[in-house]
Amino acid sequence: SVPPDAISAVKIFAPYSIYKGKAALSADPLLPTFSKLESGDYRVERRGVIMLTFWPAIGERKYDWEKRQKFALSATEIGSLISLGSKDSCEFFHDPSMQSSNAGQVRKSLSIKPHADGSGYFISLSVANNIQKTNDRFIVPVTSAEFAVLRTAFTFALPHIMGWDQYTSQLPHRPNQS
Amino acid sequence: SVPPDAISAVKIFAPYSIYKGKAALSADPLLPTFSKLESGDYRVERRGVIMLTFWPAIGERKYDWEKRQKFALSATEIGSLISLGSKDSCEFFHDPSMQSSNAGQVRKSLSIKPHADGSGYFISLSVANNIQKTNDRFIVPVTSAEFAVLRTAFTFALPHIMGWDQYTSQLPHRPNQS
Amino acid sequence: SVPPDAISAVKIFAPYSIYKGKAALSADPLLPTFSKLESGDYRVERRGVIMLTFWPAIGERKYDWEKRQKFALSATEIGSLISLGSKDSCEFFHDPSMQSSNAGQVRKSLSIKPHADGSGYFISLSVANNIQKTNDRFIVPVTSAEFAVLRTAFTFALPHIMGWDQYTSQLPHRPNQS
Amino acid sequence: SVPPDAISAVKIFAPYSIYKGKAALSADPLLPTFSKLESGDYRVERRGVIMLTFWPAIGERKYDWEKRQKFALSATEIGSLISLGSKDSCEFFHDPSMQSSNAGQVRKSLSIKPHADGSGYFISLSVANNIQKTNDRFIVPVTSAEFAVLRTAFTFALPHIMGWDQYTSQLPHRPNQS
Repeated sequence: SVPPDAISAVKIFAPYSIYKGKAALSADPLLPTFSKLESGDYRVERRGVIMLTFWPAIGERKYDWEKRQKFALSATEIGSLISLGSKDSCEFFHDPSMQSSNAGQVRKSLSIKPHADGSGYFISLSVANNIQKTNDRFIVPVTSAEFAVLRTAFTFALPHIMGWDQYTSQLPHRPNQS
Repeated sequence: SVPPDAISAVKIFAPYSIYKGKAALSADPLLPTFSKLESGDYRVERRGVIMLTFWPAIGERKYDWEKRQKFALSATEIGSLISLGSKDSCEFFHDPSMQSSNAGQVRKSLSIKPHADGSGYFISLSVANNIQKTNDRFIVPVTSAEFAVLRTAFTFALPHIMGWDQYTSQLPHRPNQS
Repeated sequence: SVPPDAISAVKIFAPYSIYKGKAALSADPLLPTFSKLESGDYRVERRGVIMLTFWPAIGERKYDWEKRQKFALSATEIGSLISLGSKDSCEFFHDPSMQSSNAGQVRKSLSIKPHADGSGYFISLSVANNIQKTNDRFIVPVTSAEFAVLRTAFTFALPHIMGWDQYTSQLPHRPNQS
Repeated sequence: SVPPDAISAVKIFAPYSIYKGKAALSADPLLPTFSKLESGDYRVERRGVIMLTFWPAIGERKYDWEKRQKFALSATEIGSLISLGSKDSCEFFHDPSMQSSNAGQVRKSLSIKPHADGSGYFISLSVANNIQKTNDRFIVPVTSAEFAVLRTAFTFALPHIMGWDQYTSQLPHRPNQS
């Protein structure tokens, strides 16, 4: 009774969220889409990402979801993050309007920097928007334990993000009549 | 003949158990529950945990299951445990009655401490119950090999605990008639 | 047309095999069995193992499968193997007749010892059979690359061996009529 | 309406591709095939591989797919690659015509060498073809982040390449009539 093409429209909400003093951070995977080729085969159409969402604290244990900003980690950026040593840092720059007439108007940068004592990282997002004349910055200190959850979950998700979970060994079937 | 909503009621019992001189310890995952939204989408309702159960020895190779105490590890506590170095220790505190009128009456603490020679860990649970005037303490020495099983199984289980196994790439389907 | 209980009888043969000068070694997982409880739930009945099989060379690239000997690695022994440092060794002892009248008549020992230059391990099986008055010994030198395959495959298999792959998050279903 | 044996013919295209100045490199898994035995069981017939494809740059951001060369990584070669330390190198030699009358006519070698500063690897393929009198060489510098993606994706794929994903615990079913 449910049409088959409706199935893929079901969404799952299971973000991993970290609430800290000045901002909150959540992560969830966004899977790739496939297109069906004339041959009947499937090709990845849009690569998956892990979406990071930051939103600011506006009081004790109160956060303003309306002021959220997003940053979509590619497979290679996920590779960078999951192989980060305890004293390493990394930074990624995105332009959401790249290759459009608004290129350069919005600049996002995500940085991950280790705590001085090796007990975790600061994960920060800056969003400079020249059109709206806004400049947002979020900093979320993340403990080693929280980062281990991110690393483990991202390592799990990476092959799914890439679409490699669709390569699945299949046993040979015989036609029903045989 | 089995109604679809009955399927999710099936339980699996496959604990990993470690029996030692003074107590036994077992671990098994408790998965999250989802609620169905009006949009037809699904949201995690109750996060999953890994449940640790301790019960005391009462003789040679005899253990008293009636005297068991439980400790539910959250995703972040699992992250702490699976990233523990061979000389690191960690400790978690739970109040099962938190945010109720009995808050503070029962205090549970789980500690993981390395053996002096790096050959494993002591995993201990203390439960102080002010209402029943009881104080239980369990210590289970765990070898490196046993801890490697816990680490591997917890790393496997963590994305399931978080509900991330529900994000699964789907190939596009065409309606049957096309 | 295939009765449902026949499905679980289908066997898969996909051993990972290492052929060396004096003997060959193969590994494949043997999954746990479950029993259905009166409640409709399932409990692990027999734990899974990873089965190692050794068989001797009897000429150039010729091996005698009839002379094979087996060693079943438990979850904890797998934990020991996958956490082995490049200079560590380990040894396991099994008595296949343990707790029977033949206890002690057959003694099996598996040892894993590092190459002096850290380039891999020697994996050896000794089987001393007092009843048949036989004493078999197999040594298979395993490169770091081959050991990495064993470690990765065993890490993948371990949660399946334990039955933890059966804990799978389930979305709530509604009865069809609702 | 789709015959069951047609299902296994569906192909998935989800390569991980790295485009650099002089050449591009992509990786995707090729799963094993199984044959059905008379007993109804299944045995791996042809092992899986991870297929690496190299093709040359012929201008700025332009690449010539017609000039591609392939290299099929076996399970053991994947084991070597995923356990490579940041200062290690490895090299594999393949003869695609091995054990045929053309043996030795085409020689392929894949080498992975660390950057001097530990920031990644050079992955190179040489193909010397004595019949066509050609000699192709591709070099793709790969960052640590890109290599982490390859390592994670290959670690995920390895058990599938080996066919171990087909060993899946099964709950006991009862015949429908009981």
